[in-house]
Amino acid sequence: MKENVLNLVEANFFRNFIMAVILLNAAALGLETYKGLSADALKYLQIFDGLCLIIFVVEILLKLFAYGLAFFKRPWCVFDFIIVGITLVPNAGNLSVLRGLRVLRVLRLISMMPQLRMVVGAFLDSLPGVGAVAMLFSVIFYVFAVMSTQMFGAEFPHYFGGLGTSMFTLFQLMTLEAWAEVVKEIMAVHTWAAAYFITYILISTFVLLNMVIAVVVKVMEEQGQDTHLNLLEDISKRLDKIEKQLNK
Amino acid sequence: MKENVLNLVEANFFRNFIMAVILLNAAALGLETYKGLSADALKYLQIFDGLCLIIFVVEILLKLFAYGLAFFKRPWCVFDFIIVGITLVPNAGNLSVLRGLRVLRVLRLISMMPQLRMVVGAFLDSLPGVGAVAMLFSVIFYVFAVMSTQMFGAEFPHYFGGLGTSMFTLFQLMTLEAWAEVVKEIMAVHTWAAAYFITYILISTFVLLNMVIAVVVKVMEEQGQDTHLNLLEDISKRLDKIEKQLNK
Amino acid sequence: MKENVLNLVEANFFRNFIMAVILLNAAALGLETYKGLSADALKYLQIFDGLCLIIFVVEILLKLFAYGLAFFKRPWCVFDFIIVGITLVPNAGNLSVLRGLRVLRVLRLISMMPQLRMVVGAFLDSLPGVGAVAMLFSVIFYVFAVMSTQMFGAEFPHYFGGLGTSMFTLFQLMTLEAWAEVVKEIMAVHTWAAAYFITYILISTFVLLNMVIAVVVKVMEEQGQDTHLNLLEDISKRLDKIEKQLNK
Amino acid sequence: MKENVLNLVEANFFRNFIMAVILLNAAALGLETYKGLSADALKYLQIFDGLCLIIFVVEILLKLFAYGLAFFKRPWCVFDFIIVGITLVPNAGNLSVLRGLRVLRVLRLISMMPQLRMVVGAFLDSLPGVGAVAMLFSVIFYVFAVMSTQMFGAEFPHYFGGLGTSMFTLFQLMTLEAWAEVVKEIMAVHTWAAAYFITYILISTFVLLNMVIAVVVKVMEEQGQDTHLNLLEDISKRLDKIEKQLNK
Repeated sequence: MKENVLNLVEANFFRNFIMAVILLNAAALGLETYKGLSADALKYLQIFDGLCLIIFVVEILLKLFAYGLAFFKRPWCVFDFIIVGITLVPNAGNLSVLRGLRVLRVLRLISMMPQLRMVVGAFLDSLPGVGAVAMLFSVIFYVFAVMSTQMFGAEFPHYFGGLGTSMFTLFQLMTLEAWAEVVKEIMAVHTWAAAYFITYILISTFVLLNMVIAVVVKVMEEQGQDTHLNLLEDISKRLDKIEKQLNK
Repeated sequence: MKENVLNLVEANFFRNFIMAVILLNAAALGLETYKGLSADALKYLQIFDGLCLIIFVVEILLKLFAYGLAFFKRPWCVFDFIIVGITLVPNAGNLSVLRGLRVLRVLRLISMMPQLRMVVGAFLDSLPGVGAVAMLFSVIFYVFAVMSTQMFGAEFPHYFGGLGTSMFTLFQLMTLEAWAEVVKEIMAVHTWAAAYFITYILISTFVLLNMVIAVVVKVMEEQGQDTHLNLLEDISKRLDKIEKQLNK
Repeated sequence: MKENVLNLVEANFFRNFIMAVILLNAAALGLETYKGLSADALKYLQIFDGLCLIIFVVEILLKLFAYGLAFFKRPWCVFDFIIVGITLVPNAGNLSVLRGLRVLRVLRLISMMPQLRMVVGAFLDSLPGVGAVAMLFSVIFYVFAVMSTQMFGAEFPHYFGGLGTSMFTLFQLMTLEAWAEVVKEIMAVHTWAAAYFITYILISTFVLLNMVIAVVVKVMEEQGQDTHLNLLEDISKRLDKIEKQLNK
Repeated sequence: MKENVLNLVEANFFRNFIMAVILLNAAALGLETYKGLSADALKYLQIFDGLCLIIFVVEILLKLFAYGLAFFKRPWCVFDFIIVGITLVPNAGNLSVLRGLRVLRVLRLISMMPQLRMVVGAFLDSLPGVGAVAMLFSVIFYVFAVMSTQMFGAEFPHYFGGLGTSMFTLFQLMTLEAWAEVVKEIMAVHTWAAAYFITYILISTFVLLNMVIAVVVKVMEEQGQDTHLNLLEDISKRLDKIEKQLNK
């Protein structure tokens, strides 16, 4: 029995069927946002959406049955489990905000397509290399957020009224979005603010650049350059042999 | 007869003549946009433009005759064919929008100049490497577009009123253009929107960065680094020979 | 006695204790910015902050005693010394601006965590490579600042009223932030200003790009590619030996 | 006589003296922009500026005498000649715009400092590699400029009124500066404009990215990676010798 279910969930036709359901569901959810929709059409779309959800739940249950506890050791199975779990919630309530979460199911395309799995895997692999720079960035960001709140919070509550607001404004300055406008407003009161914020912009963009470089170096190491390394190591080993040959 | 035409269309003077016509046509089309132009001058320019078009059509017909069906197997010939085809349409109507399409003919410079052909070829070669990341990007973009439309569509129709509008706004946020303004407007109603949109910005720019890296790695592999690879492979082969020599 | 103190300040538990104080102090300083805080809570937080400061001062004094003058030869000790020194000032006055400086103490996390030290070290190592480009940038920036002030200062004092204001505006243009707005305002008087500022934008972003490349090349040289260099040099040395062997 | 002058203009103390004059002149020109300056101080500064100019003219004349016609074969001498020539003009008129050109003299620092010469030389070396991409970019830019002028010129003269205005707007869109604002204004009349401009933004930024990559590849080839190439070619030559040895 268990073996039959295992064969089923790993069969190609089953996989293709689930992918088709995901794509149709994606299209239906997109269609639902169309304003000119009649009440009837909307109802049918929602019934179809419910149907898709049932299929997904059944699929997960079958896999759970087939794999047993090993299910939770497969990261992409856990990913599917969480996604379907989250999208079960919206059907309970009727809030438009919660209903929006249903489309997260489309993310299951990532776990179903090997190419996308690989890309996401490569992304996650490149993150550890960024770790230390990200930590440095957090320390600097936190220091500037607290400092800005204490310095400018009282006079510019819309920019630096609290720690959260300050972080938002500092993130905005880092993306260089309307930074001159914000800084000029504060410079009208504290002229030295220009030096303070330009220092912040220079430091934060420089740290950001180093995070980007860290990712680039990591990705390049894994891709293209491995060929060189492999060839070089191969050449090195061959020289070993030649040396031994000559010393005989 | 067919051979004579073939010799003609592949002759250097013919190629140079067509390039000259393209450049003169480009200049004439640019001149046409000048406001201070007298009605007479405009008429002469348009007659000249018609003349250029006739020359292009004759050129394509000659090439079609010379190459026969092989014409459609040459990508740059097909490119010329499509470009001239598109620019035939505007002459029918009188709409200023359609008339604007005539300048597309200048794009034929790309198919006439070997250096530009090579650059475009290199661009197209670098695209497959981006494929998987682009697909991942599409999935994420679609999910956010549907989700945003359902969550904010009713309250902010000018930003998220429909799937198309949402995609425009999300593209705008990704380019970091006036993002703080948009997000602040939505935060006034839903405070958690800051977290939602900053997550989107971080994810989309990170995926974009990876698309850029994919292009860079591809281009670098094809250029500069090949020299290394060639040398390394050459060294590897020579060691083979030396090994054989020693084992004799 | 001196040896005991040395053992103390280099003990792991001491290091961990100081790091815990820094983190708690960081949290307390963050909490202080919260508006809904009662006067009592604020008082306790400030007493705690004073306590942390005393601990830091004692730590520095112990280290000074233990290391003697060698203390000032260790860059990270000097860093700690300066940071604690700066954050002693705010406690004297009551100005909100000065009080903001207290959070700089959190930067001591960088000197306490080896990973962060390494990242900052790598940053500083990559700076000399940028030196010449940075100097070129300064010359160009200064020339444009003086030139813009003399050309547009009288008519647009809010953009180019003085050398400082001009530098701010030119920095803003370089970050491409609202540049079209500024340039259009000036173009209304001097039409040639478009050419002037677009030239500036092209030059400054090109020089900036070269500064970024200089950093990237430097960082890459130090990381990933060293493996190749080491292997290549190793292969080169082995060939030396083989040649000698054969010549015997 | 000629030899004496040659020794003079190539002497270290002469070079240092000229550099000092350039730096002092730069400082004086910066000071001149200061508003709080008394009329007397301004007069002295302008007299000093005239003095500097005389020194530069004498220097150029001495070099012309010493090198003869070979003067015009040295690119940096020609650079100095042009710079001093340009800055002679402003002293004739009294226009504030022309007076601003005097600060261009500070650019002579580039020709006087070997490090800066090298950086500028490296910049110029990296340009040819960009040639083909830049040409492609020009073609695309021109096509879009003419097309936009014809399509939107009549309705949006402030954005696309003429070829020059269109080029300014398209450059602005390419830098992503306030692009959404411009596009939304045009979308209000032509809804398809979104597709048109987003296509333009994608193409132009992609071509720009390729120009940046071309520069990066060029710079990297010249720097860091040469070491690898040299080592590889050295290894290759040694294998040649070993092969010959073995075949003896």
